[in-house]
Amino acid sequence: MISKNQIKFVKSLHQKKNRLEHRCFIVESTKNVLEILSSDYEIVQLFATKKWIEFNSVDVKVSVNEVVEKEMSRISALKTSSEVLVVMRMKERIEKMSFEGVNIMLDDVRDPGNLGTLIRICDWFAVKNIYLSTNSVDMYNPKVVQSTMGSLQRVNVVYADLVNLLDSVGEEVDVFATVMNGENIKNIKVNNNSLFVFGNESKGISEDILSKIENRITINKFGNAESLNVSVSAAIILNHFCN
Amino acid sequence: MISKNQIKFVKSLHQKKNRLEHRCFIVESTKNVLEILSSDYEIVQLFATKKWIEFNSVDVKVSVNEVVEKEMSRISALKTSSEVLVVMRMKERIEKMSFEGVNIMLDDVRDPGNLGTLIRICDWFAVKNIYLSTNSVDMYNPKVVQSTMGSLQRVNVVYADLVNLLDSVGEEVDVFATVMNGENIKNIKVNNNSLFVFGNESKGISEDILSKIENRITINKFGNAESLNVSVSAAIILNHFCN
Repeated sequence: MISKNQIKFVKSLHQKKNRLEHRCFIVESTKNVLEILSSDYEIVQLFATKKWIEFNSVDVKVSVNEVVEKEMSRISALKTSSEVLVVMRMKERIEKMSFEGVNIMLDDVRDPGNLGTLIRICDWFAVKNIYLSTNSVDMYNPKVVQSTMGSLQRVNVVYADLVNLLDSVGEEVDVFATVMNGENIKNIKVNNNSLFVFGNESKGISEDILSKIENRITINKFGNAESLNVSVSAAIILNHFCN
Repeated sequence: MISKNQIKFVKSLHQKKNRLEHRCFIVESTKNVLEILSSDYEIVQLFATKKWIEFNSVDVKVSVNEVVEKEMSRISALKTSSEVLVVMRMKERIEKMSFEGVNIMLDDVRDPGNLGTLIRICDWFAVKNIYLSTNSVDMYNPKVVQSTMGSLQRVNVVYADLVNLLDSVGEEVDVFATVMNGENIKNIKVNNNSLFVFGNESKGISEDILSKIENRITINKFGNAESLNVSVSAAIILNHFCN
């Protein structure tokens, strides 16, 4: 059972302003839910179908609300609702501004699926930090969370003024802007800590950020596609430079 | 203006069975439309807003139907309809079964966004052929077309019985299955023609196909993500092996 107030509350978390007000976000589908429950995020509410509860034994500190599919579809942010949904507490973020190892920076990335996929890719390549411009999509957007496929809690995501942040990066970090006409990545070796910067899906990296970066790199093109998707580009670059 | 019959016809093309019956498919958004109009696909109908017609001079053999946004949203397959939509004729495909250069094979890829992105990636790396199992998503699905970002007409997409096809591949082609526990791609050199096989989004490559492939390869993992998206994996592998 789920009360009208619970429905109203969970649905309100589909919107960023309500997530910020309540300091809560939702996570759906088994893989994502089980991963976040095994992390140090605090659980607030759990809703699941009878079938899900029977097949998954979870040890949580809150009561399990058994709901029917119809109720689930009312609170879900997905087109096809999952069998489980949890409300989690946002963590008070002590933002670690570290550039050790390989890091990425995203300027104005707007598509939730792209950010979720990028978080998943960073988790695969053990990239610890993603720096995002404040106008980028919210990491707690339900579609971002969904596309992370359980990687959300393992990557440090920091929203910041990227121009200021770039000014603070020391010489021990090599910064690279990914552009359409830079140096072929296959000709570049990185021995230092590194920061790879990616831009908006259609406009690329904004001028105020690009002007601060000397090194410009490009993925070698053999055919005719105009561009590659930002998460695809990041995956290629991280695979190339992570060793 | 658009008639009721036109609306009914265009909307019917959102479904695969109607596309097959009429041998037509739809293409939306400026980039995709301009690219397909410059190809050798035959145009059947064009619908666009007044604004779009003013800003884009297109030379087509059919009359341009000016429509208002509300009409466009009725025929569009996109959440946010574009300012232009064309109905194109499917080509009678003379299916070229060539394995020259680098090729990919997709077993049971179901997500339209994945196939569209894969076609775009193949266009970037000049991969000429994509072989798809017959249970994979239709290349003319509007969401596939949308995610190709104009690359649809430059890649040869062939639906086939993959088991039979693999039996016909000669020794001049190196076949690689991408799996979770194969040889690190960085240890592999390919001098021959090559065929890289990718599996379903959740189940991977099916057993009857996998059993026909000796070489198993994997993208090196450094972190904890369980897997990578199929289009991301393909991009990394194509970047690695295209030279």
